[in-house]
Amino acid sequence: MKTLVIIAHPKYDNSMTQAFLKSCQKDIDSVDLLVLDREYPNYDFDVKKEQKRLIKYERIIFQFPLYWYSAPAILKKYQDDVLTRNFTYKDEYGCLDGKELGIVTTLGEPIHHYHDGGDEAFTIDEIMKPYHALAHKAGMKFLPIFSISQFNYLTEHGKVKLLVRYRSYLTNSHLNSFKSEQLWYLEQLQLIREHISEDKKAGMDMLLDQIQSNYDKLDELNWELSMIKEKEDE
Amino acid sequence: MKTLVIIAHPKYDNSMTQAFLKSCQKDIDSVDLLVLDREYPNYDFDVKKEQKRLIKYERIIFQFPLYWYSAPAILKKYQDDVLTRNFTYKDEYGCLDGKELGIVTTLGEPIHHYHDGGDEAFTIDEIMKPYHALAHKAGMKFLPIFSISQFNYLTEHGKVKLLVRYRSYLTNSHLNSFKSEQLWYLEQLQLIREHISEDKKAGMDMLLDQIQSNYDKLDELNWELSMIKEKEDE
Repeated sequence: MKTLVIIAHPKYDNSMTQAFLKSCQKDIDSVDLLVLDREYPNYDFDVKKEQKRLIKYERIIFQFPLYWYSAPAILKKYQDDVLTRNFTYKDEYGCLDGKELGIVTTLGEPIHHYHDGGDEAFTIDEIMKPYHALAHKAGMKFLPIFSISQFNYLTEHGKVKLLVRYRSYLTNSHLNSFKSEQLWYLEQLQLIREHISEDKKAGMDMLLDQIQSNYDKLDELNWELSMIKEKEDE
Repeated sequence: MKTLVIIAHPKYDNSMTQAFLKSCQKDIDSVDLLVLDREYPNYDFDVKKEQKRLIKYERIIFQFPLYWYSAPAILKKYQDDVLTRNFTYKDEYGCLDGKELGIVTTLGEPIHHYHDGGDEAFTIDEIMKPYHALAHKAGMKFLPIFSISQFNYLTEHGKVKLLVRYRSYLTNSHLNSFKSEQLWYLEQLQLIREHISEDKKAGMDMLLDQIQSNYDKLDELNWELSMIKEKEDE
């Protein structure tokens, strides 16, 4: 699965959050970045080039800081220009049909402000409906929104957790399943194992065995559970 | 009450809908237009000038065709640039606090497509949450959204109804009240009366008397109803 991260950020080069996110994924070959503010500082899009780019990817991510409850204007200009009706509508050529659309958004306010009665009064899911509607119209699967709240206040441990979650959001082909999440972790650890020194491999193998055995046990329990349910239904 | 209509439309001069809406209000002194695409074709806003403009109005309307479930990009650029945090946030200078924010949007699809299970899957109210959230943050009252669906298919009668509704949306200071709606109609008819020929005034006076008497009767019934309710509560 190939992933394209389309970034809208008027101050991209000065953003610590964006620099961190970039460092999180720079070793992954299946992920490419498109920084709109760099490629198109005049908002003047090469429509054909960008349409050709989009069709090469299975997962498309819009990544941006939240400005007035939406992306910075340049992403809207990209949508207005590149996502032409013919190209995008599922009931026309539907060139995005079957792909996935994800949102990575960074918030200056704490995430708990985004609730009924909170300072922001609306949830992130409510605010993002225009993107969900776009995905629906294009026949794309809309992924759960990935919010990063107040990055600058994160502890080192919080940043490591963010790194893992973000890499999974870009590359895990079944984001919504706990089972697939586990398999993804096993894969990642096996990749890391190839690059560590021999003396550390024994420790890593024990960890891998433990996770694999947990995974098998859980699989078995799920199977037993499904048998019990089947009997109840008879 | 003064109203500013901020229009975002990349093809403003060719739009029949926008030409119609302009003709609907051009005689009203208390309504001004700002066509963003004309004033700022390069998206390069004069922030101070636009902030000074905003504070002169009590009602601010964003008017635009719906592009990807939002306004064309130029309005977002206006928001990102002109509505600075200091100027806008209710808990900072709050220069828009107490004003009203309205949305006039034109749709290419029938309005009944904008529903759960409809072609568009989301309602206009859901899609417009980012504007509602902006109003909330600025301490502005968010007006009911004014949607115009498939203008080109409207009959002449439909257009006349639209004209009256639109004028009311721009100038009626109490949009949500039936009583105020009636008073607004009476005012409008009295204004028209001043500009018609003497021989038609008699007919107009009969009409005005009839509406005034309906209004008085309704007022009386409402009063009686409130008396009955008061007794029931005792």
